[in-house]
Amino acid sequence: INSHIKEIINQSQPRNLYPPIQYMLAGGGKRLRPILTLISCRAVGGQVEEALDAACAIELLHNFTLVHDDIMDDDDMRRGRPTVHKKWDQGIAILAGDGLIGLAFQSLLRTRSPQISQILNLFTEGVIEVCEGQALDKEFEDRPRVSLDEYFNMIRKKTGKMIALSAQVGGLIGGGGPEQVAGLEMYGSLIGKAFQIQDDLLDITSSEEVIGKTFGSDITAGKKTYLTIKAREMLMGREHPLLSPNRKRGWDRADLHSIREFFEELGVIKAARQEAEGCIVAADRELRVFADPRSREELEAFSALVLNRKR
Amino acid sequence: INSHIKEIINQSQPRNLYPPIQYMLAGGGKRLRPILTLISCRAVGGQVEEALDAACAIELLHNFTLVHDDIMDDDDMRRGRPTVHKKWDQGIAILAGDGLIGLAFQSLLRTRSPQISQILNLFTEGVIEVCEGQALDKEFEDRPRVSLDEYFNMIRKKTGKMIALSAQVGGLIGGGGPEQVAGLEMYGSLIGKAFQIQDDLLDITSSEEVIGKTFGSDITAGKKTYLTIKAREMLMGREHPLLSPNRKRGWDRADLHSIREFFEELGVIKAARQEAEGCIVAADRELRVFADPRSREELEAFSALVLNRKR
Repeated sequence: INSHIKEIINQSQPRNLYPPIQYMLAGGGKRLRPILTLISCRAVGGQVEEALDAACAIELLHNFTLVHDDIMDDDDMRRGRPTVHKKWDQGIAILAGDGLIGLAFQSLLRTRSPQISQILNLFTEGVIEVCEGQALDKEFEDRPRVSLDEYFNMIRKKTGKMIALSAQVGGLIGGGGPEQVAGLEMYGSLIGKAFQIQDDLLDITSSEEVIGKTFGSDITAGKKTYLTIKAREMLMGREHPLLSPNRKRGWDRADLHSIREFFEELGVIKAARQEAEGCIVAADRELRVFADPRSREELEAFSALVLNRKR
Repeated sequence: INSHIKEIINQSQPRNLYPPIQYMLAGGGKRLRPILTLISCRAVGGQVEEALDAACAIELLHNFTLVHDDIMDDDDMRRGRPTVHKKWDQGIAILAGDGLIGLAFQSLLRTRSPQISQILNLFTEGVIEVCEGQALDKEFEDRPRVSLDEYFNMIRKKTGKMIALSAQVGGLIGGGGPEQVAGLEMYGSLIGKAFQIQDDLLDITSSEEVIGKTFGSDITAGKKTYLTIKAREMLMGREHPLLSPNRKRGWDRADLHSIREFFEELGVIKAARQEAEGCIVAADRELRVFADPRSREELEAFSALVLNRKR
């Protein structure tokens, strides 16, 4: 995947466009989405090489969302390095994200498959839904209350859709039947849900050295995460100074540690872990569409990888 | 075109995504690109209805570039109204542009044509080239000298490619032969070149009431336009305080009027007008691929429209 991505973005000019894109892609992401595309293709009996262009397209599209989200959240660090808009400037980061969308479609269009039309539709829906999800995420920052249902709808668009389509597209390219492809979509969607809840957890439970992002940046930005919404639900109307709708912004490190402790005491951390685990168990159940256990092996290993991720 | 665009973007939620997109598209653009797609389709004998989805896709894509360019240039006004990032905020404007790319591909994918694969490739190349062109435009701002060749290469990517593909895509959907489609591409490319030179001209010769943009904003931003490059060429090594590479930025209105006067005296305004006219004459010559004069009528009227445009 990495060497193929390198080939896709090997231009040096214009220097305000390709070097920032190369920097972003060389940052050492986990490549979970393209891996999922490749193993989904293999699960239905396809050759991974056939799905490589599409897999890389999805990774490029994912990186577009990261570059633009980092601008909107004004995050300084990504994968332990300065974000594109900090290393260059905002205009260059906007352009790098835009360019990544174009390069993603270009890579996808190299895919040879009888299902190319459906694949293109799914991918395009993915672009739109990820924008809708990000728009909702930003809207929620300014709202005093957000329900768990609203939150789940938001992360389904922001995170779930693209992970679902990673699996779906792999299945389509590999020549999977409608039932298998639908199973892969559900599998990916549930993995995506687990993944986002884990992200919310890692923001406040991990260290900067491990995740490469600023500690507690979601909380500091006033984002509605699984933890903040669940905490409000578990408090059942009682108020807590740190979760008051008119609470101050700009927590210091001591505040963040106190919030983490409070989440732990309230049982919110445990609830989030259980929710994520539940999704992954449910995801694995969707793999019953693969009668032969050997077809399921790589996808089950992928679930285990996500379950145990530390970053 | 306008009613079809309205249908494409008729959602109300999320309110941070669709209302800004609707605002942008309701701003009353000239719709030159989609018009060109429709009349190119008709010129080769096709039905305009078949090209409507693609025509609107190109207009959506064009509006994506406007929203993002306005952020990068920090322009306050567009078509006589506040720009999206001024009316909402920067994050919302980034998202609106991203969403427009997705919606553009979605509209394009509704096109039914045996040439859909080539159309998608052209459109995707268009996305990438417009980013490359914008990157070069920004790079040129920081460079003391830019040659006319470099400038022409930049505007070919930033403006020419998308106008060329507007004509090309119309020809492909209408079922035009390779020679006709190639003629339409050249025609569009030359119209695009004329169009950008006119834009450079209008920046300093038109009034804000007419073009709806800030007077002299290109010059103020230190952009390399046809006028500034040509002026340097015509000065042949002599210096002029207003065009010195280490000139101050942030001109006031009097400076801008003095620059305009200087351009007029030097003959740069006249040279730009002649260059644009020359391109349009050359564009019309490409229409010889249409043997029947009636097939050329609408395209020739389109050239005349561009030639005489005041905004």
